[in-house]
Amino acid sequence: MNISEETYIVNLGIHIRQLREKKDLSQQGLADDSGMTKSQIARIETAKINTTVKTLVKIAKALDIEPKELFDFTSK
Amino acid sequence: MNISEETYIVNLGIHIRQLREKKDLSQQGLADDSGMTKSQIARIETAKINTTVKTLVKIAKALDIEPKELFDFTSK
Repeated sequence: MNISEETYIVNLGIHIRQLREKKDLSQQGLADDSGMTKSQIARIETAKINTTVKTLVKIAKALDIEPKELFDFTSK
Repeated sequence: MNISEETYIVNLGIHIRQLREKKDLSQQGLADDSGMTKSQIARIETAKINTTVKTLVKIAKALDIEPKELFDFTSK
């Protein structure tokens, strides 16, 4: 299985943005609901930062989804 | 959905250990295959550290599984 870590976080960021938009949430809205800042959300969605598991659980809770759904995508 | 981040990383650590043991890999074996140290693996499995996505992708690659399988568990 040949996935680069960098490619994975890029795809994760895209997936998170899609999940957020499906819920009609702005970055600010998701930031407010997850106790983070808009720029943190933006940097996660654009893979500028290699975020942690706990941060992702906060995002899942704010999106009202199971954390595993955040990772339910295929990264080439 | 009411999951605590702390409970989540505890359950994630247990799940990673189960996946590792299913492959008959020791912590040292997984550490060697993922380019990490045995103590890093031990601290992830016992939720002593809040690890990052890229580290988890390295673990998934070493276990030869899709990253999403690392998160395929239910955390109460």
